[in-house]
Amino acid sequence: MKQIYLDHGATTPVDKKVLASMLPYFSEKYGNAMSLHEFGNEANKALEKARKSAADFFGADKEEIIFTSGATESNNLVVKGVLRAYYDNIRSNLPKISSNLRVPHIITTAFEHHCVLDACKAAQKENLAEVTFIKPNKEGIIFTEDVKKAIKPNTILVSVMYVNNEIGTVQPIAEIGKLIKNYNSKLPITNYKLLFHTDATQAINYFNCNVNKLGVDLLSMSAHKIYGPKGVGALYIRKGTAIKQVMDGGGQEGGKRAGTHNVPGIVGLGTAISMINDQGTKNKKNEILKLRNYLIDKILKEIPKTRLNGSKIKRSPNNANFSFQNVEGESLLIMLDAEGIAASTGSACSSGSLSPSHVLLSLGMKAEEAHGSLRLTLGKNTTKKEIEYTISKLKNIIEKLRKVSGNVLGDYYQAKK
Amino acid sequence: MKQIYLDHGATTPVDKKVLASMLPYFSEKYGNAMSLHEFGNEANKALEKARKSAADFFGADKEEIIFTSGATESNNLVVKGVLRAYYDNIRSNLPKISSNLRVPHIITTAFEHHCVLDACKAAQKENLAEVTFIKPNKEGIIFTEDVKKAIKPNTILVSVMYVNNEIGTVQPIAEIGKLIKNYNSKLPITNYKLLFHTDATQAINYFNCNVNKLGVDLLSMSAHKIYGPKGVGALYIRKGTAIKQVMDGGGQEGGKRAGTHNVPGIVGLGTAISMINDQGTKNKKNEILKLRNYLIDKILKEIPKTRLNGSKIKRSPNNANFSFQNVEGESLLIMLDAEGIAASTGSACSSGSLSPSHVLLSLGMKAEEAHGSLRLTLGKNTTKKEIEYTISKLKNIIEKLRKVSGNVLGDYYQAKK
Repeated sequence: MKQIYLDHGATTPVDKKVLASMLPYFSEKYGNAMSLHEFGNEANKALEKARKSAADFFGADKEEIIFTSGATESNNLVVKGVLRAYYDNIRSNLPKISSNLRVPHIITTAFEHHCVLDACKAAQKENLAEVTFIKPNKEGIIFTEDVKKAIKPNTILVSVMYVNNEIGTVQPIAEIGKLIKNYNSKLPITNYKLLFHTDATQAINYFNCNVNKLGVDLLSMSAHKIYGPKGVGALYIRKGTAIKQVMDGGGQEGGKRAGTHNVPGIVGLGTAISMINDQGTKNKKNEILKLRNYLIDKILKEIPKTRLNGSKIKRSPNNANFSFQNVEGESLLIMLDAEGIAASTGSACSSGSLSPSHVLLSLGMKAEEAHGSLRLTLGKNTTKKEIEYTISKLKNIIEKLRKVSGNVLGDYYQAKK
Repeated sequence: MKQIYLDHGATTPVDKKVLASMLPYFSEKYGNAMSLHEFGNEANKALEKARKSAADFFGADKEEIIFTSGATESNNLVVKGVLRAYYDNIRSNLPKISSNLRVPHIITTAFEHHCVLDACKAAQKENLAEVTFIKPNKEGIIFTEDVKKAIKPNTILVSVMYVNNEIGTVQPIAEIGKLIKNYNSKLPITNYKLLFHTDATQAINYFNCNVNKLGVDLLSMSAHKIYGPKGVGALYIRKGTAIKQVMDGGGQEGGKRAGTHNVPGIVGLGTAISMINDQGTKNKKNEILKLRNYLIDKILKEIPKTRLNGSKIKRSPNNANFSFQNVEGESLLIMLDAEGIAASTGSACSSGSLSPSHVLLSLGMKAEEAHGSLRLTLGKNTTKKEIEYTISKLKNIIEKLRKVSGNVLGDYYQAKK
């Protein structure tokens, strides 16, 4: 049997059409997009076409899209670039650099991807910002009311992910967007505008990412989660948003991101994003949802002492995340892999790390529980047969592992059905 | 006639063998290199093979190579990451964050690529560092003695490019490396070690980049200048070097650079760098040098009032950079392009910008002179026929442009032969 890939949350295969669109830009149309000659023009045209595709997808203007090396860079740029612009502004409004620069405040959530979380923690440590980390409820949902309560006069940025990468829960971005719009409308005109960012990396495939509907000023994404290439991403920056480049250098991307453009990669991103609505994942949403629900229901029914982590309803259609009592996540992965099934315990970025998932901890789980999770993320080509096979193998493996481990962790798992 | 590409300093076509090595990693072996399953292992193996190729090329250990999105990111990481590590260290050695943190000193050159220059200028502006910008001589060479004189007790980083990207002049990196090694050997053991970085982006194709011979602690490069793909680069970091990641997030690259690995891009970098010595540019060095010298000699002889910018001897074999009296660079490019010849005025990154080349200004040229430069950079497939064609077209174009412009700029160009 061929290998079964149920780790689309970690990365996706490049769609053949996407790859085909990229190929001419490696060895034939290889110009530097900044060059003032035919090779350069050709590259630049391709770049602007991709920018248009991304802009159309987000309901934005072309000038509001910049390309980066991926969501990690986009997210770092948001946190650091907003702070950099803030201090630049403060500095130019003070006659002399002063140690009394008012430290701004950032609101984010406790279960963001590490790139947002760590960028915020670093800013905190470096005394550049104070940060509030809002906790989700047990179901993995952030409440708009909690965001509202956290806003202080010096808050300059709210960053809430659209879909959580481990448990797939969907956050009320549009609702938070309204709250912030309302807050800003009551600010004195001289005040620093409160900016709203969402990391939409895991949302693009299945959810409405119209930036005006969402009310976001900044939105991050990565091509390799949407059947595009690795090493390229984008950031939507609403016109007039106070953000400064973090990567200094050449004048690329309107001075917001230096570095020679990854032309084939950007072309791939453009093709991938333009395919989502018609040929891609969006029109397969119901199909995938049905398959995923079948997977969840069957596993919760057939494997005792199993829990679904995160809300089943407010959840990305391709995500399932389980905890199995008395089962250690890494052993589970290895045994699934031996049966040809590729899965993960949570974020691929933190695999190899022995610390428990910060996402599961934020839901109120104990460290020993958080160690035993399994994330299965379906893709547009996942079949019922693959899901059936996975369920049957998983049943056997869990049984085996439980025999080995005994009931060391105690009986704290409530099977939820 | 097919187009003639003489802009290899801006970017190079991806070699067919390089592209072939990348192809399987888009749609077949598409795993996230951090994933704990077969797809992940496969990706990770490819990654480590590429890392080995780069390490071998630089005479380094595999653990000393990290992958980035390109030289701009590598260079930013050097400047910002060294400062970040410094302040982290200071901070943890102080009971409380103090505004009396000693501001460290960085030495670089006035004609570095903008990504080093602007990162240093930003650090200066943000009061994170004081910076000395050493000027090259008229021939575009930095003197080791000038570096020595610039070192102060609080100097923590010296960054000198190996080969200048506009005029191709080669800097005495090994000599500066010795100076710094000697300086460090006399420091009290408790002192902060002075680090030495070189941006070797334009050097890899033709020069010895053994990090021990050069005596560098940090070395930056980009794949797309060596017939590899755009959007991927590397940074050599000598073991024990005090540098902290700038891109926060997942634990990739030993915590030095977060973000999902660009697997196909990194594979391409590995193939490209492993080809340099045998099938690549190194064994064509003499051939290219001969062709380039023919180009320079013929142009200086046949086009009056023309000057070669930068030393002819201490120069990358593929670079020629001219100033033509009374000729405006951009018009020249447009007319060359119309004849099917792709060239540049200097750095592609700054094209479109109307400011004169900072490199030429650093040689002591006047702004109006610096506007009229032409960079021709040869590649491994450049032919004598292409060079002949270029020379003949250039002669006509210069003549035409001079007729239009008249002698408005005066008679300050001395033809050098």
